[in-house]
Amino acid sequence: MKTLFIERKFPYDGTQLHSLFAYLEHKVLGPSIVSWQGPCSISFEHMVDGEDLLEQAQIKGDEMLHFIIEVFDRDLFSGVALQRMFAAIAKDYLQSNSAVLKNASLVRDGDDIYWEDRKLSISIATKSPVSVMVHFAMNVTNQGTPVKTLSLQDLQMEPRQVAEALMVKFQKEFTSIVTATQKVRPVS
Amino acid sequence: MKTLFIERKFPYDGTQLHSLFAYLEHKVLGPSIVSWQGPCSISFEHMVDGEDLLEQAQIKGDEMLHFIIEVFDRDLFSGVALQRMFAAIAKDYLQSNSAVLKNASLVRDGDDIYWEDRKLSISIATKSPVSVMVHFAMNVTNQGTPVKTLSLQDLQMEPRQVAEALMVKFQKEFTSIVTATQKVRPVS
Amino acid sequence: MKTLFIERKFPYDGTQLHSLFAYLEHKVLGPSIVSWQGPCSISFEHMVDGEDLLEQAQIKGDEMLHFIIEVFDRDLFSGVALQRMFAAIAKDYLQSNSAVLKNASLVRDGDDIYWEDRKLSISIATKSPVSVMVHFAMNVTNQGTPVKTLSLQDLQMEPRQVAEALMVKFQKEFTSIVTATQKVRPVS
Amino acid sequence: MKTLFIERKFPYDGTQLHSLFAYLEHKVLGPSIVSWQGPCSISFEHMVDGEDLLEQAQIKGDEMLHFIIEVFDRDLFSGVALQRMFAAIAKDYLQSNSAVLKNASLVRDGDDIYWEDRKLSISIATKSPVSVMVHFAMNVTNQGTPVKTLSLQDLQMEPRQVAEALMVKFQKEFTSIVTATQKVRPVS
Amino acid sequence: MKTLFIERKFPYDGTQLHSLFAYLEHKVLGPSIVSWQGPCSISFEHMVDGEDLLEQAQIKGDEMLHFIIEVFDRDLFSGVALQRMFAAIAKDYLQSNSAVLKNASLVRDGDDIYWEDRKLSISIATKSPVSVMVHFAMNVTNQGTPVKTLSLQDLQMEPRQVAEALMVKFQKEFTSIVTATQKVRPVS
Amino acid sequence: MKTLFIERKFPYDGTQLHSLFAYLEHKVLGPSIVSWQGPCSISFEHMVDGEDLLEQAQIKGDEMLHFIIEVFDRDLFSGVALQRMFAAIAKDYLQSNSAVLKNASLVRDGDDIYWEDRKLSISIATKSPVSVMVHFAMNVTNQGTPVKTLSLQDLQMEPRQVAEALMVKFQKEFTSIVTATQKVRPVS
Repeated sequence: MKTLFIERKFPYDGTQLHSLFAYLEHKVLGPSIVSWQGPCSISFEHMVDGEDLLEQAQIKGDEMLHFIIEVFDRDLFSGVALQRMFAAIAKDYLQSNSAVLKNASLVRDGDDIYWEDRKLSISIATKSPVSVMVHFAMNVTNQGTPVKTLSLQDLQMEPRQVAEALMVKFQKEFTSIVTATQKVRPVS
Repeated sequence: MKTLFIERKFPYDGTQLHSLFAYLEHKVLGPSIVSWQGPCSISFEHMVDGEDLLEQAQIKGDEMLHFIIEVFDRDLFSGVALQRMFAAIAKDYLQSNSAVLKNASLVRDGDDIYWEDRKLSISIATKSPVSVMVHFAMNVTNQGTPVKTLSLQDLQMEPRQVAEALMVKFQKEFTSIVTATQKVRPVS
Repeated sequence: MKTLFIERKFPYDGTQLHSLFAYLEHKVLGPSIVSWQGPCSISFEHMVDGEDLLEQAQIKGDEMLHFIIEVFDRDLFSGVALQRMFAAIAKDYLQSNSAVLKNASLVRDGDDIYWEDRKLSISIATKSPVSVMVHFAMNVTNQGTPVKTLSLQDLQMEPRQVAEALMVKFQKEFTSIVTATQKVRPVS
Repeated sequence: MKTLFIERKFPYDGTQLHSLFAYLEHKVLGPSIVSWQGPCSISFEHMVDGEDLLEQAQIKGDEMLHFIIEVFDRDLFSGVALQRMFAAIAKDYLQSNSAVLKNASLVRDGDDIYWEDRKLSISIATKSPVSVMVHFAMNVTNQGTPVKTLSLQDLQMEPRQVAEALMVKFQKEFTSIVTATQKVRPVS
Repeated sequence: MKTLFIERKFPYDGTQLHSLFAYLEHKVLGPSIVSWQGPCSISFEHMVDGEDLLEQAQIKGDEMLHFIIEVFDRDLFSGVALQRMFAAIAKDYLQSNSAVLKNASLVRDGDDIYWEDRKLSISIATKSPVSVMVHFAMNVTNQGTPVKTLSLQDLQMEPRQVAEALMVKFQKEFTSIVTATQKVRPVS
Repeated sequence: MKTLFIERKFPYDGTQLHSLFAYLEHKVLGPSIVSWQGPCSISFEHMVDGEDLLEQAQIKGDEMLHFIIEVFDRDLFSGVALQRMFAAIAKDYLQSNSAVLKNASLVRDGDDIYWEDRKLSISIATKSPVSVMVHFAMNVTNQGTPVKTLSLQDLQMEPRQVAEALMVKFQKEFTSIVTATQKVRPVS
């Protein structure tokens, strides 16, 4: 698994969630996690979460820290499981590293991270014909969000540092999962 | 996903890790997580972790809280991912509920849970021809363990209560993962 | 597997055969069979059966009883097998319940149901990137059909009652197939 | 799919249900359905149906018409679906061809065929590491059966003729299912 | 696997690489390899090789011998492996049959065939939702190619004869691979 | 993919063909190709090729160059395709590097390599519950072989050098196949 923090800021509008995004746009070949910072606003046309579509949900924020994960040749169940792992890793990292959270606890609920009723993140996992893909994003600021949110600014965390740390941790987890499938004897 | 806490204590010796264990031994049909309490001692013959086999590792403890997860018709990658989810859920639950951990932090590393250099748990995920299976166990006591360990007694946690809580949380996570694969539009 | 009879009549023109139809249009989440009544007319653009396309077949009828089945995370072979099961179930139900068929026999040939040379049904099974999907429809009337047909009116069967009965029977069959994959020991 | 009626009579005791049975014992290579006549008695050791094991069921009969189906490189869900198709085909064939059933109806319930409370058949579908396998057997006589049964003798049907007819019909169905997966356009 | 040499000449522009091309355009149903002769020029819109897209590569030639392979219900890994097999078969055939190559050797490098620095062929393997597909083409002439090329004219080979021979050899290899999956016992 | 030439000579008797052989016996973790030199004699008990079993074939040689390939989480079709690729690579390498073959040609037929009617190699590809596995072996000497054979001695090739070269070439091919599945856009 390769990692890349993309220096240039650009918005996430849903069109980035297609197979080979990391390769065709950023020359990152193979299973990957890439990250960048930018506003978020997803049109209904490019919204893939059926629940959001049914609710006609607004999904946006003035500045978010985005991640796109792509893993080839796996089923959607694995993609969603990886998405949950990423959320668990992100929650643990912020809990351990944000001074603001000394006496407070982040909670992961499925693919969401909360502090009480304040939502830090959005995420979706989906399938292309050749891969499974995850978009995960955390608010950098609370501005422009349609609901009560928590942001990295609230947590006094620097976005790029968070991105680099999480990508390395996820890369390690992914590699370790693959390895674990290659050193176990089957049972009857 | 069904859950069952098995009242009767009995040892885990590795022979329990076979397909349909929950169904054939405890009449629990379908994807399941079952739990019980008992000693642990795994012979090399029934050890499936190649790494342990190469190291000729001793895997034992006088009293552990065991879990066996079985999910049908999935690949081993998914099985290992579910194992990691279970470890993350267990770590979060104990961290939030053990009074002993007010000023200390459990750490999850792959499928292991640690407090500093003290190891709370053992685990393996493997594949039968019809399912993926996970064994996960936490020390109830530190007696009889071959390495420096942490136990539920140290954490002042009651095993059965822990078991019931974790099984419900894992059941919820599993159901939510399956649901997430059934409400998303594919991408190109 | 969920079932739903949609009260509102609307035409089937082929555009309904896409992933998440039941969820996005009718809030039915997960594996499902839904049914409704309405005219049928499929343009070549939305015709997915290659055989029909090669023959430039006309597929239409003034009033049909439609079914859409969606099952996630299975291959097309399973989708076609489920389609055939549905046809077998429909044939058996009508044979047993139509007074008109006391001295006559319906015949299933693949996914088609016939009475002698009169065709009762049309069907196709296909694959979306996240699911397998089946459209199955029976003539309510013979009007507007391009070939010699049989209809529920001929059989003196009430469409909605047929729909409800078949959906329950198919749901039972599907559940029973899934269960059968979770209670059998593998062989060598 | 190849078919073979094996002339020699021999018992079915469960050991026949292993991968490559048709090839290694009868030189039938590839997806196949083979049939023979003989007594049936399955020891618990070779019983693969967990439900039968839990019930400590007696599975036997003095003379049955056996079928073993093997299909390579498919999942167990497909195997069970094919088993159900075979049961549907067998039920329809007997219904249409047995003079005894002029005024009575066989009923298929999952993989079982009944006339009222008399059971005609036994069946199991399972998985080997390389294939899915089905055993399906119909009583030729009611002697030696542990429950209230129906037999081909009751139906005045000649076993070998039934075997040949059903194998040809199943072969046609299987081929038609495979073909149906190769002539349909995918949907979104 | 079916084979067809299409008599009519027509260009390959990338739009031919879609599922059911052989069936919908040439009535060849099932796994297939078809071939024809014609110019080649692939627009970026229909270029599927990400590497070519990143390099903004020109892919063209005034006259090429085209092959399209389609195999259903397999993963992309298998599709790429089949592509490599085809390249190996083509290389061996030309090496053995071209008088020009008595004292010179063709070399296969992945999916490419070379004579020293002269490139004979282009190829891509990709996935549709129902199949894996390969396009493979060899220059008939060196005219109109953007790089240093080798052509069947250089090798004094008659295109149609080459096409017929390679299709028969590939068909034999494919059949033999499928058969090899149906006559081996699994291991532990 | 990892490679290892095992210095120690030991016989191949069929028991080596099990999952994790390279890891448990030689600490090579993950997809791998390993090689060693030694006699060959396979008992019927450990013979997995059904064709050999039916023919009660003798498979042996006094000294062979053995290869075992293991690739995880792929189907048997892919395993057989990789076996064929290895045979193609071995044939090409020997053809190019053996001085003896200046005016003679090796021929690959499926997984076999021949010089006229003299057979150089034996091979089988099979499936474990977690991986696909290939055994491929070339005669180092013609002694002790039950049929007319060709050997590396005949070709004046040094076994270990051949082994090292072929493992590197196969590793490169495997890596290139995996990469090719991660840089292509899907088609409709």
